[in-house]
Amino acid sequence: MRELTVDLGDRSYPIYIGSGLMAKAGDTFLKHGLPIKSPILLVTDSAVVDLHADKLEASLAHAGYRVTTAVVPSGEASKSLEMLDELIGAALEAGLDRKSTVVALGGGVVGDLAGFVAASFMRGVRFVQVPTTVLAHDSSVGGKVAVNHRLAKNIIGAFHQPEFVLYDLDTLATLPIREVRAGLSEVIKHGLIWKAEFVEWCDDNADRLLALDPDALGYALYEGCLVKSIVVSRDERENDLRAILNLGHTIGHALEAVAGYGELVHGEAIAIGMVGSARLAAQFGYSPDIASETERIFRKFGLPVRFPSELSTDDIMDAMMHDKKFAEGSMTFVVPTAIGSVEIRKDVPSTWVREIVDGLRDC
Amino acid sequence: MRELTVDLGDRSYPIYIGSGLMAKAGDTFLKHGLPIKSPILLVTDSAVVDLHADKLEASLAHAGYRVTTAVVPSGEASKSLEMLDELIGAALEAGLDRKSTVVALGGGVVGDLAGFVAASFMRGVRFVQVPTTVLAHDSSVGGKVAVNHRLAKNIIGAFHQPEFVLYDLDTLATLPIREVRAGLSEVIKHGLIWKAEFVEWCDDNADRLLALDPDALGYALYEGCLVKSIVVSRDERENDLRAILNLGHTIGHALEAVAGYGELVHGEAIAIGMVGSARLAAQFGYSPDIASETERIFRKFGLPVRFPSELSTDDIMDAMMHDKKFAEGSMTFVVPTAIGSVEIRKDVPSTWVREIVDGLRDC
Repeated sequence: MRELTVDLGDRSYPIYIGSGLMAKAGDTFLKHGLPIKSPILLVTDSAVVDLHADKLEASLAHAGYRVTTAVVPSGEASKSLEMLDELIGAALEAGLDRKSTVVALGGGVVGDLAGFVAASFMRGVRFVQVPTTVLAHDSSVGGKVAVNHRLAKNIIGAFHQPEFVLYDLDTLATLPIREVRAGLSEVIKHGLIWKAEFVEWCDDNADRLLALDPDALGYALYEGCLVKSIVVSRDERENDLRAILNLGHTIGHALEAVAGYGELVHGEAIAIGMVGSARLAAQFGYSPDIASETERIFRKFGLPVRFPSELSTDDIMDAMMHDKKFAEGSMTFVVPTAIGSVEIRKDVPSTWVREIVDGLRDC
Repeated sequence: MRELTVDLGDRSYPIYIGSGLMAKAGDTFLKHGLPIKSPILLVTDSAVVDLHADKLEASLAHAGYRVTTAVVPSGEASKSLEMLDELIGAALEAGLDRKSTVVALGGGVVGDLAGFVAASFMRGVRFVQVPTTVLAHDSSVGGKVAVNHRLAKNIIGAFHQPEFVLYDLDTLATLPIREVRAGLSEVIKHGLIWKAEFVEWCDDNADRLLALDPDALGYALYEGCLVKSIVVSRDERENDLRAILNLGHTIGHALEAVAGYGELVHGEAIAIGMVGSARLAAQFGYSPDIASETERIFRKFGLPVRFPSELSTDDIMDAMMHDKKFAEGSMTFVVPTAIGSVEIRKDVPSTWVREIVDGLRDC
């Protein structure tokens, strides 16, 4: 088992990464002092419940916990105030009190939703994350929890750090390969912003990662979480540094929105976005090799590096402007300066961005 | 103008109390560095908007702020997730960003609701409170914000401290006398838990307070806020000490619930509850004068010290058990040990409570 600590003062917490962790979950809950007397609400989704909930429930019950499981529909639509309302109701009916714990078993959607339940129920109770996707390594560090509003994603939320994260690699074996690739896109992103040697390692170990080799996957998730935790501990509330985590996300979010959510999944959209950012780097005079290397690596992982030809540049530019409320003329981007390091540029001419978006169209 | 600081480390904030503060609000916003470029959402209710919104909007506009006003229906029903959803929509449509401020203009309902909007919009933006009731002196200290769930009051919320509180005494002139009395009930509570000489002062100045004499009212609000701020700064997250603020609230909440909200307003219900707690003190061997003094003072302020005869003791006991999930047999109460000091007793026999509730029935 690997372990790393997200260092946030008195809100610090460990991430445990390894095989067979779920079967020992009850012990981990006890070790962390989560009170036996206070009921637990386990939140999971319709895609995960049949695969993993039994094992987690059994382990917690064996340790003496009373667990009530609430299942939400799989998918982004569950990140809503309506679902928050339902889960708060479930928490009340299950008799949760101020010392209770809310557990998220699932991917990013369940983590964000259950995390906001934990943040807001009785003004904040304990929270434990049990991620079941590669992508969730990203949301398991940093404490950002939220639901969506009709007009904007992730706009209603909180910063609420978990007690610990239990990353059982066995759960990843059931993931569709497309989700594995898309999750690895964020893993590689963490290398691209911070650590060239980790990008190199991913490059060298692409086959093992895509084959879900537990040792390779454990190491990659560890490194991905580590980079994110270093960044987050230096800037918990996203005042400045934390913005570098958004490498590829400005173009990526716009692509997701314009393609229709689900057409391009998040990890795919940001892979294309990272290629775009790397091309911006060349415009600023950094080596053009950054872009070609970025592209080569994502291709190796079977990730898209171009967007579908039917999407219009105007629509993508509009989505970006709307998303970030950019001032006329100049835009802010995270731009690589080499493989493994980035800078934040607030002086990116929107004409450059338009040109680069155009060049990312599949043809 | 009086000023006091709620001391919460880097979340400390001042409360300004005085006449004519609203007309100078714009300057106060500027002095506190609230950015001119980021739009403000002003939240108020249907009872307050016509009385005070114009003045506040004008002052902010004069200082250069762009203000959008959102009006919610007056009353407890507005503390809902539906209203949160609407206000987040209003914030988005008004173009609020991460540096924006949400302002609450009104009583406790508006403060709790707008405060939770501020706490959750983009995971937390700035918050300013402009209370317009005597009772709101209580909710303006401590950062507790929340909305209600169908199954429980104040169950979905956060701790979110304001930038500052602007208590313009002129707004109190328009309050119905019943609300003034009920608000003073919480003011006197702050004396009863902490400061005998302030209770004495209230006793001596009841006529001036009920006549809304600005100087007396300003002093009383200052002292009420001061006691609460001392308690809250020693226990921001309600781990122990903060519970003393609930003097009279266990019986009070039960009376509110059983009478139907609105029959007894909050300040009235807790006045009766505080008489009950003072009678418990006598059971524990403290002076019976505590109860007679408490009762005499509340009567002087025109507050009820008995509940309507039609309410049943069983219903009231049930509501208390449900509210606090008391263990069988023994209950927890804040109990006075003298005028101006209290202790928390976890060993109150429910039989004593039943007897005391019976004795508080109007007959």
